[in-house]
Amino acid sequence: MRQKYLIGVDLGGTNTVFGIVDPEGNIVCEDSIKTQNYPLIEDFVDACTRCVEPLIQRVGGKDLIGGMGIGAPNANYYSGSISEAPNLPWKGEVPLARLLSERLHLDVVMTNDANAAAMGEMKYGAARGMRNFVVLTLGTGVGSGIVIDGKLVYGSDGFAGELGHLIIDRSSDARLCGCGRRGCFETYCSARGIVRTAQELMASGRSSLLDQISELSALEIYKAASQGDAVAIDTFRLTGETIGAVCANITTFCSPEAYIFFGGPMHSHEFIMPHIIKTYNAQVMPIYRNRCKFLLSELMDKNAAVLGAAALKA
Amino acid sequence: MRQKYLIGVDLGGTNTVFGIVDPEGNIVCEDSIKTQNYPLIEDFVDACTRCVEPLIQRVGGKDLIGGMGIGAPNANYYSGSISEAPNLPWKGEVPLARLLSERLHLDVVMTNDANAAAMGEMKYGAARGMRNFVVLTLGTGVGSGIVIDGKLVYGSDGFAGELGHLIIDRSSDARLCGCGRRGCFETYCSARGIVRTAQELMASGRSSLLDQISELSALEIYKAASQGDAVAIDTFRLTGETIGAVCANITTFCSPEAYIFFGGPMHSHEFIMPHIIKTYNAQVMPIYRNRCKFLLSELMDKNAAVLGAAALKA
Repeated sequence: MRQKYLIGVDLGGTNTVFGIVDPEGNIVCEDSIKTQNYPLIEDFVDACTRCVEPLIQRVGGKDLIGGMGIGAPNANYYSGSISEAPNLPWKGEVPLARLLSERLHLDVVMTNDANAAAMGEMKYGAARGMRNFVVLTLGTGVGSGIVIDGKLVYGSDGFAGELGHLIIDRSSDARLCGCGRRGCFETYCSARGIVRTAQELMASGRSSLLDQISELSALEIYKAASQGDAVAIDTFRLTGETIGAVCANITTFCSPEAYIFFGGPMHSHEFIMPHIIKTYNAQVMPIYRNRCKFLLSELMDKNAAVLGAAALKA
Repeated sequence: MRQKYLIGVDLGGTNTVFGIVDPEGNIVCEDSIKTQNYPLIEDFVDACTRCVEPLIQRVGGKDLIGGMGIGAPNANYYSGSISEAPNLPWKGEVPLARLLSERLHLDVVMTNDANAAAMGEMKYGAARGMRNFVVLTLGTGVGSGIVIDGKLVYGSDGFAGELGHLIIDRSSDARLCGCGRRGCFETYCSARGIVRTAQELMASGRSSLLDQISELSALEIYKAASQGDAVAIDTFRLTGETIGAVCANITTFCSPEAYIFFGGPMHSHEFIMPHIIKTYNAQVMPIYRNRCKFLLSELMDKNAAVLGAAALKA
């Protein structure tokens, strides 16, 4: 049998990127369309088809394609549908996996971005050879992909693995989350949550290089930390301590071999990771102590979303 | 092929019970030995063999036995060993599954009590037909068995599923747990934790029927609640609210179809369960709301530990 390529699709609010991935995890060709240009899903499916078919021809035709994986916000693996994604143009339930499968005559599976990231790490990244691990993606929110015994955890309805919405602070003035509740993990450790932490430290009256910055971001905090700014360094310390404490709780659930971290804020890993590890081992139940690895994604400098989506079919 | 029987073994600090289970989940015969009478593991294995072999003969001999499952404290599924169980006579690591398998020439698997309970519910109890559910066993501690996609979650090392040790209170005066840490779920919702809650309410100066009781227990609190005692009723309300809030967090991991509750305190389910359900649906992330079942074990009036252990091989 000839070797198969896989198609990975990174469906985002701005661009939808198609990549053809070879068995070694190289993206051999890719192209993209503008997601917002197609407010009708039928037009979007047409545009996807026009974009991906030339790529398929370039690698030798459909017989060499093992299938297509799509990573998309609010996507459900079981239904193959996207539901009420706030940053996508289509309303209601969109059965995109079926629509593309019928048009392209390919097997198509779809899941959310963080689950795709976890599959990408298992096939091509830091989790190669592992069967039990958790990927945490730190971005606008905090996403998670949980792999147990070599398989992604989807749960009874396809909505498992939303660890960004673990409630970690039950006080009445805990941070408000986009999900409508208070105290979710992601309000502390997403890129936005890290900025809120810095703002709280600054509001307590400590002076900081960050005082000069008009639009605070995780990147600006990193720059300040690199210059020795105490508020910036404390921001990342608090972030790491929170992540470590949350991981200590997650371990009672699935006792993973490793936690793997992905996303912009982890470019500041030198300021965050030591505190994750220290807090985790101080707080985890004794039977788990000093047994878990804490790793950076190995796909952060690659097109991780396309690789992760392709890995859904690998 | 003739139908197979399974052997379920409930290894406890006082008794070790052997039961032969038919394919319908009936225990057709059983016998037991005193665990503490055998401080040497070799003597214990001898005693097990003398106890179980007559049972095997009674159902027609070894050819009709599909295997043996053991539920034991501190047992590890992967290693087949019991490690440092505080209430058992053997120290260090005891490879009991291998020792019994060699002696009896049967397949033997072993796991902890709560995992066995989960398998029992799936094969013979409230979780029949389910592939994603969580069993919480409320006893001296709080145990958990997590089933995802039809399989028990063991994690990377066999120690997954210790939800009784989720830290749910991070304040410095949170309740001290037997694991050496503070604020574990089981310090609030085990039988002992429920008693502590009642004691705290009584210490606040409220008068209660419980004032008369010299040795407070979950059963005494149940009796008082049944007579309308407000402190007892509040104790169970707080217990239910805590369980509901914890389940709301667990759902972000594995989005189960149902939570199933087992153990003495659940005889008071009329006072606890409504608060579990109300708090869960109030606090869970909106996508999960009103979708999960909350059930009582269907094995509480049977020999659940023996059935659960047998189900490990079913």
